[in-house]
Amino acid sequence: MDAELRGKIYQDAKEWILNAGRNIREAINDPLVVETKAHANDLVTEVDRETEYFLVTHIRDTYPTHKVFSEEGYGDDIQSLDGIVWIIDPIDGTMNFVKQRKNFAISIGIFHEGIGEIGFVYDVMSDILYSAKKGEGAYKNDEKLQSLEPNLALGEAILGFNHKWLCQNDVIDEKVVQQLVSNIRGSRAYGSAALKLAYVSEGIIDGYLTMNLAPWDIAGGMILANEVGAVTTNLTGGPVTLLSNDSTVTCHPAIQTELIKDYLEKGIK
Amino acid sequence: MDAELRGKIYQDAKEWILNAGRNIREAINDPLVVETKAHANDLVTEVDRETEYFLVTHIRDTYPTHKVFSEEGYGDDIQSLDGIVWIIDPIDGTMNFVKQRKNFAISIGIFHEGIGEIGFVYDVMSDILYSAKKGEGAYKNDEKLQSLEPNLALGEAILGFNHKWLCQNDVIDEKVVQQLVSNIRGSRAYGSAALKLAYVSEGIIDGYLTMNLAPWDIAGGMILANEVGAVTTNLTGGPVTLLSNDSTVTCHPAIQTELIKDYLEKGIK
Repeated sequence: MDAELRGKIYQDAKEWILNAGRNIREAINDPLVVETKAHANDLVTEVDRETEYFLVTHIRDTYPTHKVFSEEGYGDDIQSLDGIVWIIDPIDGTMNFVKQRKNFAISIGIFHEGIGEIGFVYDVMSDILYSAKKGEGAYKNDEKLQSLEPNLALGEAILGFNHKWLCQNDVIDEKVVQQLVSNIRGSRAYGSAALKLAYVSEGIIDGYLTMNLAPWDIAGGMILANEVGAVTTNLTGGPVTLLSNDSTVTCHPAIQTELIKDYLEKGIK
Repeated sequence: MDAELRGKIYQDAKEWILNAGRNIREAINDPLVVETKAHANDLVTEVDRETEYFLVTHIRDTYPTHKVFSEEGYGDDIQSLDGIVWIIDPIDGTMNFVKQRKNFAISIGIFHEGIGEIGFVYDVMSDILYSAKKGEGAYKNDEKLQSLEPNLALGEAILGFNHKWLCQNDVIDEKVVQQLVSNIRGSRAYGSAALKLAYVSEGIIDGYLTMNLAPWDIAGGMILANEVGAVTTNLTGGPVTLLSNDSTVTCHPAIQTELIKDYLEKGIK
């Protein structure tokens, strides 16, 4: 994608995501109907659906040849990343949205032939837009985010991951993750994958592990994190599948090999 | 303590904590010398010490008969909660302070003959002061926090606790905590005990478990949480020791019995 097209799509997407966020803020105290999807704690509300519909409608009107891969059903049936594909989570962190009415984000990743070109994570209630264009750096509102410092020891790292990594699960031996916890400086769980990836970009956590999450949970944040020098792979260091659920690690490059070889690969099922 | 004295101490403490926070914000981008205390991840900086010194000096000048129980060594040698005792953590969440330069708090709990009279948790970088006077409600800046809703099922609760609850430890069988994780709606780890207790007061999480934490980590937040109807005990439902480290549970009263009887008591070592 050339810089001019990237710039035009970025400007359009930025306007739409800010407007979508404004709509959510205006309705933030309205009563919510909360439904469940795959299981009792997989929540969805009409705000998730309305936000996705708003974004998808704008994309289709302006870019009819682009495809949309999204959480709540208004997107396309995506079988490949050919062409330009927008990967959208209208509300990442729906549990936080429902309970806290904050600490959730709109996430958009825009890919061209499988390459991440533009990423957004919008912390709606704080009105903080994290954004990145490939090769042009990542921003927190108008502030350019610094590239990650060159050195980091795993023992001084703070990593984000759900407590379920430490319970019996289908992906990894929890005992290996317990060892990891005892060998890093600290761990955090905030309830939104997109925000945690934005925090990696900001350098306030050093990595983030996802377990069986969907492409829309990580697509926007991956592109942000990549722009400051973080790296994203699956748990064995291979490329991330963006067409189906996957478990991933986004982290500071200085800790990647040790984190994967000494922990994740040893525990993977 | 009568309401007039409580009101006077509250006003003084509020002024000092806001000033202490302003001093921290003004120096937030200065280089830090980070030292370690009990272990490699138990951090302390000159900002912790300066903040405590600032607060303790004001207390001693104004209330020479009051005692101070605090983290960094400027307080008194406290053997009882007789009289009026200020329990202070100058920076709760020092790891967040060092790494993130945000998401930390100044915590103050003021006790009279062992009864919590006044509590403060100050989210310094967000400039949000949570405060409470016994019997007069809790506030987030000038907004009165609502009492907790009467009903809550444990299966719909979001609880805050460190990932170490799910690793082998001296306090509780981690397998019981793993069961708890699979039976609640969600779990969070933010890296500051005081802030998590403030979030319980705000109703955005439903409980918070501490493992072997010091009195200053929880004293201010306990008083806040109590004012909205939350309850704080040790892990078997007994009173919390405020003279030495303890493991505690602060939660919505509707989930207290089930949380303690069906989980914590079954796992305690």
